[in-house]
Amino acid sequence: MALTRIGLAGLAVMGQNLALNIAEKGFPISVYNRTTSKVDETVQRAKLEGNLPLYGFHDPASFVNSIQKPRVVIMLVKAGAPVDQTIATLAAHLEQGDCIVDGGNEWYENTERREKAMEERGLLYLGMGVSGGEEGARHGPSMMPGGSLEAYQYIEDILLKVSAQVPDSGPCVTYIGKGGSGNFVKMVHNGIEYGDMQLIAEAYDVLKSVGKLTNGELQQVFAEWNKGELLSFLVEITADIFSIKDDQGEGYLVDKVLDKTGMKGTGKWTVQQAAELSVAAPTIEASLDSRIWKGGCIIRASFLDRIKKAYDRNGELANLLIDPEFAQEIMDRQAAWRRVVCLAINNGVSTPGMSASLAYFDSYRRDRLPANLVQAQRDYFGAHTYERVDMPGSFHTEWYKIANSKI
Amino acid sequence: MALTRIGLAGLAVMGQNLALNIAEKGFPISVYNRTTSKVDETVQRAKLEGNLPLYGFHDPASFVNSIQKPRVVIMLVKAGAPVDQTIATLAAHLEQGDCIVDGGNEWYENTERREKAMEERGLLYLGMGVSGGEEGARHGPSMMPGGSLEAYQYIEDILLKVSAQVPDSGPCVTYIGKGGSGNFVKMVHNGIEYGDMQLIAEAYDVLKSVGKLTNGELQQVFAEWNKGELLSFLVEITADIFSIKDDQGEGYLVDKVLDKTGMKGTGKWTVQQAAELSVAAPTIEASLDSRIWKGGCIIRASFLDRIKKAYDRNGELANLLIDPEFAQEIMDRQAAWRRVVCLAINNGVSTPGMSASLAYFDSYRRDRLPANLVQAQRDYFGAHTYERVDMPGSFHTEWYKIANSKI
Repeated sequence: MALTRIGLAGLAVMGQNLALNIAEKGFPISVYNRTTSKVDETVQRAKLEGNLPLYGFHDPASFVNSIQKPRVVIMLVKAGAPVDQTIATLAAHLEQGDCIVDGGNEWYENTERREKAMEERGLLYLGMGVSGGEEGARHGPSMMPGGSLEAYQYIEDILLKVSAQVPDSGPCVTYIGKGGSGNFVKMVHNGIEYGDMQLIAEAYDVLKSVGKLTNGELQQVFAEWNKGELLSFLVEITADIFSIKDDQGEGYLVDKVLDKTGMKGTGKWTVQQAAELSVAAPTIEASLDSRIWKGGCIIRASFLDRIKKAYDRNGELANLLIDPEFAQEIMDRQAAWRRVVCLAINNGVSTPGMSASLAYFDSYRRDRLPANLVQAQRDYFGAHTYERVDMPGSFHTEWYKIANSKI
Repeated sequence: MALTRIGLAGLAVMGQNLALNIAEKGFPISVYNRTTSKVDETVQRAKLEGNLPLYGFHDPASFVNSIQKPRVVIMLVKAGAPVDQTIATLAAHLEQGDCIVDGGNEWYENTERREKAMEERGLLYLGMGVSGGEEGARHGPSMMPGGSLEAYQYIEDILLKVSAQVPDSGPCVTYIGKGGSGNFVKMVHNGIEYGDMQLIAEAYDVLKSVGKLTNGELQQVFAEWNKGELLSFLVEITADIFSIKDDQGEGYLVDKVLDKTGMKGTGKWTVQQAAELSVAAPTIEASLDSRIWKGGCIIRASFLDRIKKAYDRNGELANLLIDPEFAQEIMDRQAAWRRVVCLAINNGVSTPGMSASLAYFDSYRRDRLPANLVQAQRDYFGAHTYERVDMPGSFHTEWYKIANSKI
């Protein structure tokens, strides 16, 4: 057998689909999984989906040796310890100049630690966020590779063909930068994704609980929204969801789905990182590079084009809210925004996302916030000092003594 | 000179005041600071404040050797590297069985790391949160010691006398538990403190910006509030603050204070830790032990008594909102709460704390949230599976195929 161009380890659904995608684009690929039945399953799928050039291996040594040098292996395994275990398994067989690519949702500092450890062994490393879900992985995901530029350049031809293709814009992949930057961008992407989903869920709740819309009417509303400026993957699939009948009983499936969500991984990290960097999370849109996120990924939306244009107009834009076009639109719509939030509040429907965004907007646009009181309190009880609006310097006042000497 | 009972290193204002407090309660104390002028300043204050038994040292060896064995040294230095440096300086002179107490706002995991390192050298370690600001440190703080029980027991007599004394309740100190638990409780305390301050600042903003109250009227409102169920240190000092005239110009000082706040240390950590543990931050009150927080600390309030009573009624109470008394009060007041938030929204005044608390309440009390849509979306694009409300198990649906086969 001739050597393959690339390898992929970790054959859960995302890994299987990405491997099939790569093979379909004409790059012969070797695949490996610790549980070998997954290898056979993937090989079987490759046959059924058009005799794709995909080769399965049951042991890591023959897997690695089947790949042409310098070897590149993409891992799609759970973040954390499973990644370390897979690296150890693979690295035992890799040679100088070979490269491992982590395609999972890894904490960016772990990627940087691993890149350093690999470098000491003469191996290259990439941390590459992949968005698009299982359909995206199979037919065109959005990919965010970061780490070794040399390794990126070696597989760039593969990534350009495998990623989502957007008319007039091209493939949804770009080299993000050094270290864990690919994972960092993917983390922020997921934070935006969760924000999108929360706002859609709140709109659903208000329409259903206050407006008393049926699932049929909800389907029409979201389908209508998807024809205009809200055109996006998430609005589109939301319309679809309201159309599905329950196959195990009466009524619609969405009403039978348990309303339970967790908070872990990238969503949690985004919140923690925003706190670390003192970034108000609503500004994470500023991290956006729409060349990456135009297609393939979960947050793809026609709206991203307009965000890109705002940054094209002014690359130094501190916040989208001060772009003249966005500012005008927000001004035009703020009355409706306030009406919807108050409607929800007066009906006991919680809209934490819409309310927090509105509070952010109202904080951002005001020239002065009540934080002067907080600074005065801190100086009162902790001698933390304060600054003044009218002169430079740090000041401390004996608030207690002055206030109580008067009485 | 006879040996002293205890030592204190780090003589910024909190350290000076706590040392003077200990000396005043009859425990001879040695003090040390790297910048020796602070040592002389503290010795001078001890003379002026009543010839208190406080002894200053300019070098760490004679400082440590002046303390009776087993020696205990309280550090009050900046969290992070300065703590490690001070430990290194002190430990060079300490002996088996001696103890270091960190009285600063340290990240609890750092305390646990240091406790282990100290144990290997035969030394004991405590991480002790101290609340009450500079006035509290001088005349009675709230103290939250955690770590070595043996070390706690050795200085318990000092802590019981030095901490704030609350009638009918006693000293505001208790052994919190092992490891970094004292720092953890102090971190949560500070999170509550910041929440209190935020809500007070929002009330101020609504009263001032919408109600157009003058500083004189604001002073009266907060003073009035402090006579009733809101009686608390923070409401009391807020009333005081509105009474202070600017000594550098016209008008009131609070209007000249710059409205700038940072986010670091314990506040940031509380947010990150709440995300880590998937705890909605409003439930941090559940960590409350009112024996510790009744007096001395910044969040002391008559309201804490009622929280304590709710937990006395039911130690297993999952949330204060389901205590019958609190539930009834919230029900009685929720209409006013909704009116105030909508009033603020319609006047463009941001009330992020009041809105987020209301969203939390509205989420908590509803039998069903729109998270079923989020689960359906995740199953649609990522095959994440979902649970059903009417039967056990994990389910996956081919939403895309079903929705699009109908068209």
